[in-house]
This record gives sequence, C-alpha cells and structure tokens, in this order.
Amino acid sequence: MGGKVAGNLVIIGGAEDKENECTILKAFINLAGGSDARIVIMTTATALPEETGAQYLDVFGRLGCSHVSACRVQNRAEAHAPANCEKIAHSTGVFFTGGDQLRITSILGGTPLEETLFQKYRAGIVVAGTSAGASAMSDLMIVEGQDDETPKKCTLKMAPGLGLLREVVIDQHFAQRGRIGRLMLAVSQNPYVLGIGIDEDTAIWIQPEGVLSVIGSQTATIIDGRPMVHTNISELKPNQSLAVIGAGLHILPRGYGYDLAGRNVIFPEEEGYFAHRRHADNYGSQLL
Amino acid sequence: MGGKVAGNLVIIGGAEDKENECTILKAFINLAGGSDARIVIMTTATALPEETGAQYLDVFGRLGCSHVSACRVQNRAEAHAPANCEKIAHSTGVFFTGGDQLRITSILGGTPLEETLFQKYRAGIVVAGTSAGASAMSDLMIVEGQDDETPKKCTLKMAPGLGLLREVVIDQHFAQRGRIGRLMLAVSQNPYVLGIGIDEDTAIWIQPEGVLSVIGSQTATIIDGRPMVHTNISELKPNQSLAVIGAGLHILPRGYGYDLAGRNVIFPEEEGYFAHRRHADNYGSQLL
Repeated sequence: MGGKVAGNLVIIGGAEDKENECTILKAFINLAGGSDARIVIMTTATALPEETGAQYLDVFGRLGCSHVSACRVQNRAEAHAPANCEKIAHSTGVFFTGGDQLRITSILGGTPLEETLFQKYRAGIVVAGTSAGASAMSDLMIVEGQDDETPKKCTLKMAPGLGLLREVVIDQHFAQRGRIGRLMLAVSQNPYVLGIGIDEDTAIWIQPEGVLSVIGSQTATIIDGRPMVHTNISELKPNQSLAVIGAGLHILPRGYGYDLAGRNVIFPEEEGYFAHRRHADNYGSQLL
Repeated sequence: MGGKVAGNLVIIGGAEDKENECTILKAFINLAGGSDARIVIMTTATALPEETGAQYLDVFGRLGCSHVSACRVQNRAEAHAPANCEKIAHSTGVFFTGGDQLRITSILGGTPLEETLFQKYRAGIVVAGTSAGASAMSDLMIVEGQDDETPKKCTLKMAPGLGLLREVVIDQHFAQRGRIGRLMLAVSQNPYVLGIGIDEDTAIWIQPEGVLSVIGSQTATIIDGRPMVHTNISELKPNQSLAVIGAGLHILPRGYGYDLAGRNVIFPEEEGYFAHRRHADNYGSQLL
C-alpha cells in the first residue's frame, strides 16, 4: 500500500436506500463511470453470498448498469484464483456488501486479489463498502463492541482492516445502534487516529486528495482526539467508565465536507467547497 | 506519517541486559552516534517515571554517553510543552521505556511531541522501545491478551500504535510469556499484517530500507499469514479455539535478518547479508 492514490472511496453506514432515490448507490455508479461502469460485487463478508449478491445485481441493474457481476470469494483459495483477480482487474467499481468484517480481512488479507484491488484503487477505480464492508476500508477496524452503552475498557475489540484509508477508524449503523461510546474508546486509545461514525443510508465519499463529502439522508460523526487534554483509558479497569476531556466532535449532514489531512470541516458556503462540488457535478447531480 | 524515512528503529522484547555485555543498548547508542549521541529517555509508559528514568540515566552513563536526559511526559499537556518537544528535536536517539503501551499512545497521540518525533525519525534519528515501548512502535499494537493460552477469539484486544513501523504487529516478552497464541490471533484477523514476536534481551534493528536484523541473546519469531489457506477466526464464538492452516513461521536468532517488503529471511551466509553486516559494522562491532 502507500504511494499516490487516484481512486475514490464510498463508505456507507449500512442500510442504504435501494428502492427510492438510491442517492448513495447512484453516486457510486457515477464515480465508476455511469452507464460505462463495470461493477463487481464482493460478497466475502456475508454467509449468504447468493442472496446478497442477487439483491445487489438486481438494484444495480435497475439503476442502469449493464456490466455488473458478483465475485464470490468465500475462502482464501478463491482469493488466489486468477479468474477472480481478473474480475477486479477489469472493474471500474468494486462494492463490498455487509456481513462480518473479519471475514473480509481474514479471507482477503495478503492475497493476490487484495493486491489487485490495491493496484486498481491506486490507479483510479472507486471502492465502496456498506456496513461490514465500510468497517473494513480503514487500516484499523472495530470488530466488536457494545451498542447503546457507556464506554468501558473491556468492551472494545479492534483488528487490522484492508487499509485503503489510513489513520482512521470507521464505525457504521452509527446513530441507529448508539455507537459513539465504542468509537470514543477507539479514538481515546490513540488520538492520532480520526474516528468517523456513519449513520444508516449515509456515506462519506473520499476523493483522492483526502477530502470527504457526506452524502445520503443522515449524518457522519467525526471525532478528533487531537485536542483531547486528558483520558483515563490507560488506567481503566474492566467495567470502569471512560473519561475523555476536550475531544473535538463534528456532526456533518450531506453537503458538508472534511479535509482529512488538515482536520478541517468544509462548510457548504466555502469557496473551496463549491469548487469541490462543481467537480462532483461532473459525475452527475445525484452526488450531493 | 508516510514518506521516505531515514531513521532506524531498535525494538526490544523487554528485560534487555543492563549489567553485562549490554549488546542491545550499545547497538542503540552506536546507531545514535556513539560518544556524540544525544539520548532522550521517554518514560511516558510507566507509572514510576522517576525510578525508571534514573535506571536508564545510570546505564547509558555507564556505557559512555555524556548527553542523556529523561523527558518526563506524563499527560497530554506535557506533550504540548515546547520544552519537551525541543528535547526530542535536539536528540539523535529516543528510548521508550516499558510500562503500559496505552499510556504512550493515549498521552502522545496527535500531539506536537509525537509530530516532532515522526519528523526526527524521518530525518534520521534512531528510536528504540522496550517492552510496552516496543509494542507502541507499530501501527497496530496488542493491548491485552492471554499468555500461555490456546488462542481464542475473545482474548485479544488491539489498539492503534505510534505507527513508526507499518503493517506489522509487535509482541514482546514473547517466548518468556508464551505469547504465540495471541500473535496468531492478531495475524489471522488480517494476514496482510506481519506478526513479529520478540523475546526478552533480544531486539530487531530495522534499517531505513526495511531490512531487520536480530540482535541480543534470544530470538525473534516472524509469523507470515500470507500463505495461510484457511482460518476460522471470523466464525469463532468466544472461548472457541482458533484454527490457522498454512501460516509461515520463522524463528530467527542473532545474525539472521528479514526483508519486510519482500517477506524473505536473510541468512547469515548470504552475500547481501554480509554487505548488510559490513554496513552495521560501521556502527561498531557490538551490533551483531
């Protein structure tokens, strides 16, 4: 990994609209080339690959894509199969479904298929993931943690993700499952890492320059630990509660952006933002 | 982070010899400039900074260093203090003591002191860490796990480390505390990440080119998950046992090396190895 990246990411908090406006899925298709898009659906995360694959084949077909296929990789041998790597190599967009993020990383990690995906991403394709597929995008991912719960030391488990996005930890179904506690735990352990929680039917689109834009119906929550002046995380005993003093928090609905390198919110009225949006408009007005 | 790095790392599995030959500490001093070394001892990991700082001030003094100071950073405010950043900025070698790795990352993460450390490391200083200080070097670190235990899903907790070393997870006191189970858990979750277990009184010296050499009295264990053909990690229930089929395993005593990018062992008799060792000899014969 590393090096200059030309690709885009669309990271979705799960339960994206597949029936009505389909704002997020349309944005993905447009970034992948619109009617010329060659889309590959990766069902590795799910234990029901037939059912999930068929659902997305159907929705991408309804949205006008004629070149869509499912790439069924359910074990490490299949992630070494040249035919599956070829599918990725010829794609312009790869879509990771939901399921279990540990399936994605334990099956794809260190395989030729993963290497092909990185190469294509660096070269300029769009990679999308929803739910478990969203968690796996960053270099560090939450595997397990308490929903709707006060943050406590003993309740969080993390693992290395695919690493398409660096120095970030993603959480999904964020507001709907009450996950700010577990994201605070992740960020307080190392405030260098930026926490991004994405609600259902909401996505962050990350451009090659490291600027993200929020799309979809709900919000993305950014937790910036750098201004944090204190945490008790290293002294916590299991079942004691976390203290965090002074972390930065942003809740961003669609139309807002965030500069990952500079850690600055980009407001809708900002000059740069509109330049950014004009660029996005090249991919179709559905995007923002 | 990212970008070209000119610095060296010396990552120590804990309990390094401080009384007799002091092979590892001498290697660190030589890499930092020998008698011209300006060494800063970071005691952030420990709850006993006075005692631990004094111990290392004493041993570095005995080994002939005249420019040694302890940098006592025990909270985030101190990691913003210009005087502490200055100490790092003027150092040629920074040594992280043992303690709790979560103290290092939760106190230093995202602060000016950490940024200064990265800049200096990129520019060419040597950064060493022992025990908790070793765990914090990589981008992903083990925070908690069972010693002397069959690997089970529910027993491992990881957090983001300082990230001076990428795509690696380090474990320390490795053979002495029976930690191969917990390192296998880390690697099986994403076989892209290389597992390195370091025994007590043993270190890996990582040169800017990404080649490591083992120094000290015991061994370093490398777990390469890439050849792995199967794992049950994603299906494991708490307290079920891990299955891993086909991972690569190397146990390397001093004199052996490993190319992190190519994932190749470098044997003592190899041409390249000797060239590499000759280079090391410039820093003094204690090194290998």
